[in-house]
Amino acid sequence: MGGPVITHPNSAISNFDRSPSDPTGPRFLIENIFPAVDGGRYPVKRIAGEAVAIWADIFRDGHDQIRAALRWRRENANAWQIADMQLHSNDRFTASFVPPEPGRYLFQIEAWTDRFASWRKGALLKKQAGQDISLELREGLALARSLMPNGGTANAAVTAAIDNFNRNPEALLSDDLGGAMAQTEVRTDLSRSATIPLLVEREKARASAWYEMVPRSQSSVPGQHGTFEDCIARVPEIAALGFDVLYLTPIHPIGRTNRKGRNNSLTAEPGDPGSFYAVGDATGGHDAVHPQLGNLADFRRLVDACRTHGMEVALDIAVQCSPDHPWLTQHPEWFKRRPDGSIKFAENPPKKYEDIVNPDFSAAERIALWQALRDVLLFWVEQGVEIFRIDNPHTKPLPFWEWVIHEVHQRNANVIFLSEAFTRPKLMKALAKLGFSQSYSYFTWRTTKQELQEYLSELIGYPEREYFRPNFFVTTPDILPVQLQTGETWLFKSRVALAALLSSNYGIYNGFELIEHEPLPGREEYLNSDKYEIRTRDWNKPGNIKPYLAMLNRLRREHAALRQTDNLRFLQVEDDGVIGFIKEAVDGSDGVAGAIAITPNAREFWLHFGDAQIGGRPVVAIENLLTGEFRRLEWGGTRLRIDPQVDPALLFRCVT
Amino acid sequence: MGGPVITHPNSAISNFDRSPSDPTGPRFLIENIFPAVDGGRYPVKRIAGEAVAIWADIFRDGHDQIRAALRWRRENANAWQIADMQLHSNDRFTASFVPPEPGRYLFQIEAWTDRFASWRKGALLKKQAGQDISLELREGLALARSLMPNGGTANAAVTAAIDNFNRNPEALLSDDLGGAMAQTEVRTDLSRSATIPLLVEREKARASAWYEMVPRSQSSVPGQHGTFEDCIARVPEIAALGFDVLYLTPIHPIGRTNRKGRNNSLTAEPGDPGSFYAVGDATGGHDAVHPQLGNLADFRRLVDACRTHGMEVALDIAVQCSPDHPWLTQHPEWFKRRPDGSIKFAENPPKKYEDIVNPDFSAAERIALWQALRDVLLFWVEQGVEIFRIDNPHTKPLPFWEWVIHEVHQRNANVIFLSEAFTRPKLMKALAKLGFSQSYSYFTWRTTKQELQEYLSELIGYPEREYFRPNFFVTTPDILPVQLQTGETWLFKSRVALAALLSSNYGIYNGFELIEHEPLPGREEYLNSDKYEIRTRDWNKPGNIKPYLAMLNRLRREHAALRQTDNLRFLQVEDDGVIGFIKEAVDGSDGVAGAIAITPNAREFWLHFGDAQIGGRPVVAIENLLTGEFRRLEWGGTRLRIDPQVDPALLFRCVT
Repeated sequence: MGGPVITHPNSAISNFDRSPSDPTGPRFLIENIFPAVDGGRYPVKRIAGEAVAIWADIFRDGHDQIRAALRWRRENANAWQIADMQLHSNDRFTASFVPPEPGRYLFQIEAWTDRFASWRKGALLKKQAGQDISLELREGLALARSLMPNGGTANAAVTAAIDNFNRNPEALLSDDLGGAMAQTEVRTDLSRSATIPLLVEREKARASAWYEMVPRSQSSVPGQHGTFEDCIARVPEIAALGFDVLYLTPIHPIGRTNRKGRNNSLTAEPGDPGSFYAVGDATGGHDAVHPQLGNLADFRRLVDACRTHGMEVALDIAVQCSPDHPWLTQHPEWFKRRPDGSIKFAENPPKKYEDIVNPDFSAAERIALWQALRDVLLFWVEQGVEIFRIDNPHTKPLPFWEWVIHEVHQRNANVIFLSEAFTRPKLMKALAKLGFSQSYSYFTWRTTKQELQEYLSELIGYPEREYFRPNFFVTTPDILPVQLQTGETWLFKSRVALAALLSSNYGIYNGFELIEHEPLPGREEYLNSDKYEIRTRDWNKPGNIKPYLAMLNRLRREHAALRQTDNLRFLQVEDDGVIGFIKEAVDGSDGVAGAIAITPNAREFWLHFGDAQIGGRPVVAIENLLTGEFRRLEWGGTRLRIDPQVDPALLFRCVT
Repeated sequence: MGGPVITHPNSAISNFDRSPSDPTGPRFLIENIFPAVDGGRYPVKRIAGEAVAIWADIFRDGHDQIRAALRWRRENANAWQIADMQLHSNDRFTASFVPPEPGRYLFQIEAWTDRFASWRKGALLKKQAGQDISLELREGLALARSLMPNGGTANAAVTAAIDNFNRNPEALLSDDLGGAMAQTEVRTDLSRSATIPLLVEREKARASAWYEMVPRSQSSVPGQHGTFEDCIARVPEIAALGFDVLYLTPIHPIGRTNRKGRNNSLTAEPGDPGSFYAVGDATGGHDAVHPQLGNLADFRRLVDACRTHGMEVALDIAVQCSPDHPWLTQHPEWFKRRPDGSIKFAENPPKKYEDIVNPDFSAAERIALWQALRDVLLFWVEQGVEIFRIDNPHTKPLPFWEWVIHEVHQRNANVIFLSEAFTRPKLMKALAKLGFSQSYSYFTWRTTKQELQEYLSELIGYPEREYFRPNFFVTTPDILPVQLQTGETWLFKSRVALAALLSSNYGIYNGFELIEHEPLPGREEYLNSDKYEIRTRDWNKPGNIKPYLAMLNRLRREHAALRQTDNLRFLQVEDDGVIGFIKEAVDGSDGVAGAIAITPNAREFWLHFGDAQIGGRPVVAIENLLTGEFRRLEWGGTRLRIDPQVDPALLFRCVT
């Protein structure tokens, strides 16, 4: 195993300054390493416990026997695990490994010439051709000796063959000896690729159903500020709906200076609670809880109640402060002041946000600021929170996110980060590359069949599928899509079916289940949003679609095929009002097909299965997941009827 | 311009070790830099004097005003040339530059925030909204001061605006001042991409017509060893045929030990000249000329004669030695010996090549060997040779080629290298990435329409077009394709028309023009090949196709469109026996369309032009390049008749 190691600058890595002027470059080219994001600049995302298949083109000059191995390890481990790579075809080698648990991993490819095997192959060919190989055998002896590791433990079989050479020279050609040499011989031209990073996460990073809740709106007493206790009271109901993430809008104290009133008005009336995005007052900032919600112990009880019901709490982290946040006095160096000494509010000229100030990521003391923000996350991790939804990450420095997510993962690799970046496509994707586990997407504004199919095809294509996991929210506190403002129940069902079935990560905002749809006139925002006031709702209001949500979440739990996004394949339907799809579980054990109506009228259509397979076998029949109806496919498909007013989605188990 | 520079690890570069642990990464992401080969590991190839268009996705967080610039320079120059990059769309920026002369170049992208412009934009928006901006103006003043370069020459306009601030604060908002600040302000967050290499060559690297000649076969006296003088005598004729590269098989002394006889027989008869690939004898090696060809002065006269006739000499460099090569005694350390002290001949077990020994590229003294081989190339460059055809480069270490081509280009950037690597596809392409200007290809074995169209589509697609320039040889001393062994004149014409018209680099081996087609029985090799004996030919033998070759070369010279390969676009023809194509010159000034028959029968067919354009305008008519016949296109095409026995190719000037 010894020998000098030449670190190999792989094809993705510029070593221009090295190679042309140095006649001792690595002998092998290791190209087209897959998977890799931007040539290894960013980590590939995978799920713990699942095999990671690695491919690369590996070759050198000439016709010698070459070998290649995959090395992988936890980022902070010293020892590499090794897996032999096998030649697939056309100089492409493959191997795989299973990262056992969440964490940051690295892998690397190494290649070397098996010099003894090269000699052995030639000698055997000459022997078969009837040539005298006595000289070859003496060369083999010298080669075997020269390839014995310096000071290493020589393999007994090798030593014996060398010692017995005069009595039995052809023992050098034995299969056993070839195998022993391959394991122990010095690798004189060992070349290595660059290391490629992997971000391995737990399965929830890939599949999660989010219920977004405004804690202060959870009291059952009209107008009364909700508490963590009220939230706990709702946990069994939300768990029964099948959600597995209870996502709380910010729970911190809310500033009083320039507090916003209802419907985002500039002046708050007495009693108005303010926007929970104006984080912090004299009682505390990002590591404090709003006194009216309860205290930290109450919060931890909510975390525990969720765990008991198979859910997790996700916290909403908005890196911004109300003017009353303690940091403004404790760390004035983190905030900009104007020439007259006044504070610099957040703004997007000519708009001003007087209830918010942004810490200055360019301040001279920014490293302390970055560390304080990291410590906020770690504080909540200590309280049992392992999921964070990050507010507007695209308005903070990109290197900060790469750094802080890595910092948190160093301490707890279970932590999942959701990026709320409704911004330009490349910036949205860059945040995912930098480490966010999941990302808000444009789903909210993709409504036609063509838009949805094109958008999903982009997200599940290469390279996006390697790093970008969409989370399809049907609504958010900020976004009531124009389409939903008509309040049609079938459409609410259709949109949530699209979200929950096409994407393995999805979410709703509380009130969606009640078909809340009143907008601020002319806006994509809710009227009387509980961003600015306390709302009290009857969670069992007639007309709610809770049973429908429960059904979707139950099917997601029952079918591994639905707990993935990048396995999505669209099925052909000659109707722009119906989207057909099929999904296969990672292990091929489960397949689900579906058809979702996106226009209101009932209609019949043909669902084409084409050459769709599950577990490597053609789909021959389908079984309706709700009615149990079984039907064989004919002519590669089947005729179906859908009535969106009853249920906009038809779902089937695929039978092979 | 000052300010600290943060070298930016661009998306193609793994800076994994840096970024997660260091909270001071570059602010900008610079992604998807185009063009680049393997993320900048290998140089992109371009032609001197032509614009290189650069694209990249450039963005940072937030909404500030950003700027980007392209920097480029000769590899060995210190000063960068700068070109502003313009936003194209969707965070993609573009710029271009023209490398004036052949050489190795680097380019790099830099991006920074225009902080003054960001302030100015906000202040103007507030002013337009009627807000009081007196505080903004004071902020602008402080900003302008802080962004003045330390110790640099302050721009007069900036200094004036600052000095006059109290009298006219709104002068800070003037367009002039904005422009002045953009040029001079300190770039506090300047980020830079990795550098991307470019290999800029002269036009002959892209377009060349090779005539391969065995010098010793050029005597007009039967059986007599040809001389450089005989070669010179043929120069006018070959120049008149329109070839611009006269490629000579190896011209060095030939070994006597184990010399090969006629038709590669193991024993040479007295008088057999041996294979010219057994390089070297007691009189000299790779830097000597075969005494029977003449001397160095004679060789230089041949070089001069070619130049006079608009041609260049290309030399054939085979890195291998006859056992009599002077290096075996001068540098025994470069060669392997066997345990009995005998020399180690070249072999591909069980085959042995006793007339050749290969220097050992793994020898301890390999650097001296590498330098000696470089010096061989430089020696011939001194004799006026600027084109080398390298024999079997895929059997020598890949890093050697990267190093030696760069070494030669450091001294003479006009030198063109052709790789003769009939090997596996990835290895063949790797040699092109490492610096070979042109490459032998699989053309010789691509005979059906589907094979030809698929293969060419691969070569002119991305990323191959950025680094791989095929040279289509119809035959070589080693390869007489099975298809040509029937000796049909129309087929020789068809193959050379395909080579010369589809690829801008092509070549023939002497005798092709005479329809030589006798094979070694059952082999793809010539009978009585002049690899092993002296051939004497009647170069004006009846039935020769010299006029046809002259016609093809004349059209190539007259039409810039034919002097490019990656501008090839196939035109639809519903006949598997006819290949239709169109080519457009780089500047759009010239367009040539054609149809080439690859089966013998005469037939009519429709040539579809579809949406083909030349110079941005649709093709409306075509003019036959030989007959002058003019015809308008109808229904997007035209009906043509081809009779391969007369001419397998129809060629047209495109009229727009």
